[in-house]
Amino acid sequence: MQDQGYRLQFTSSKIEDLMYRTTFDPKSGDGDLIVNLSLFREEDLEDVLNIFKTTISSGLAVSPYVKMLHCGDTIAGYRIEEGMAGIATVCSITIDGILLKSGVLVKPHFGGLVQIRDGMPVRFTDVLRYASTTIDPLEVLMSQEVTSVTRMLRTGSGKILANLRGAPMIAREKVESVLADMMDAGISGILEVGEPNTRILDVSVERDHFGIVVIGGTNPMAVVQESGIYIRTNAMSTLIGIDEMRPIGEII
Amino acid sequence: MQDQGYRLQFTSSKIEDLMYRTTFDPKSGDGDLIVNLSLFREEDLEDVLNIFKTTISSGLAVSPYVKMLHCGDTIAGYRIEEGMAGIATVCSITIDGILLKSGVLVKPHFGGLVQIRDGMPVRFTDVLRYASTTIDPLEVLMSQEVTSVTRMLRTGSGKILANLRGAPMIAREKVESVLADMMDAGISGILEVGEPNTRILDVSVERDHFGIVVIGGTNPMAVVQESGIYIRTNAMSTLIGIDEMRPIGEII
Repeated sequence: MQDQGYRLQFTSSKIEDLMYRTTFDPKSGDGDLIVNLSLFREEDLEDVLNIFKTTISSGLAVSPYVKMLHCGDTIAGYRIEEGMAGIATVCSITIDGILLKSGVLVKPHFGGLVQIRDGMPVRFTDVLRYASTTIDPLEVLMSQEVTSVTRMLRTGSGKILANLRGAPMIAREKVESVLADMMDAGISGILEVGEPNTRILDVSVERDHFGIVVIGGTNPMAVVQESGIYIRTNAMSTLIGIDEMRPIGEII
Repeated sequence: MQDQGYRLQFTSSKIEDLMYRTTFDPKSGDGDLIVNLSLFREEDLEDVLNIFKTTISSGLAVSPYVKMLHCGDTIAGYRIEEGMAGIATVCSITIDGILLKSGVLVKPHFGGLVQIRDGMPVRFTDVLRYASTTIDPLEVLMSQEVTSVTRMLRTGSGKILANLRGAPMIAREKVESVLADMMDAGISGILEVGEPNTRILDVSVERDHFGIVVIGGTNPMAVVQESGIYIRTNAMSTLIGIDEMRPIGEII
């Protein structure tokens, strides 16, 4: 009666699959990145791109690289419908994929909301662990309408989407060097790198590990949604070669 | 710099608190139950009550007992605003509270979606574990708009909200007797009681335990939402004495 094919897919297993498939090399600047796919009405294209540009240039995203999608384009087996447009943006789990491929046993723990006060991250206020949910935490938080990314952009205080991973303390220098290479290659979004055996944004880490908090790639989408424009996001959707993407500043 | 008061409250710890405070005795029919609180526009009152009545009488809820709330009423420190109305309905975690108070070490595991085909529950298709989320799973699933409770009511097939707990196999007879007493007292909603050491709706259980799947108390709210009427639900909100509640059939 039981069908083996029916087992639940938790977000963590989807993440492990995408991390393994990440081939982006921060030294050469080539390879495939994990992307979030967002769909919106074509008539909102200019508004959406303007919001993305502002949010990304304020540092509330992982990378300026995006890929535009228009009616008829196909991505991850999905065809953009008539009257709609899409944008693929870099997902923060790309950073986990790059760290894994550099030999670091990095473990993505959860997605959540980080409270920012006067420009400083204070603490996680809500979290959902990847190993325990079949629905992507950042999609969950966006649909709960609990973000205040727009307010954060205007006043320096608000709640933004972010996520936490842990890495063994022995790999700390390697992690810092890879993160520096990533920055040079246009992949950033690091909110905080913790000290070993020390809480990070009020969350504990595994013994002899340290935490890394990365800004959610879905913050620009949260700003679009907060402004009342319809947008539907499929986080951790697929992988795209960076050669297919362009910095948003070159598009608008 | 760290503030002890700031620690995250996962849903599991909120559940344990509410279970401990449950005093409803299925033999005497007296005591306090855990309720979900839903708010909607006063002008939608009749439509909402009709939907609740239909959904509850189809067995897609935990109990027919409800408490109506009108503008100015206060519940759990919340005051119903002008133009709004509210309804408190029995939360499925009440069943865990009653089992705990009868001496059974019951462990609520997760909330999720169960696929029903031709009236028969098939499997969980999405789940969120209580120990790993700070946002209530059934609120999450409602706002993802992934339920099809209305379709299930019309055709016998669809996805409904449900949740899973495990209990030690030694307590199986006791659990069955308490569940029977609960039914007599108007608390039902049991979708499936599994066999020890056997998967339940395609989900595994702890060794020497059996699973109990209960219908989510939030299914009537999902039907209201699916029909396009505004409703906001605060699941696992507070406790109310059953003497303050009445069967919905006596109200509409």
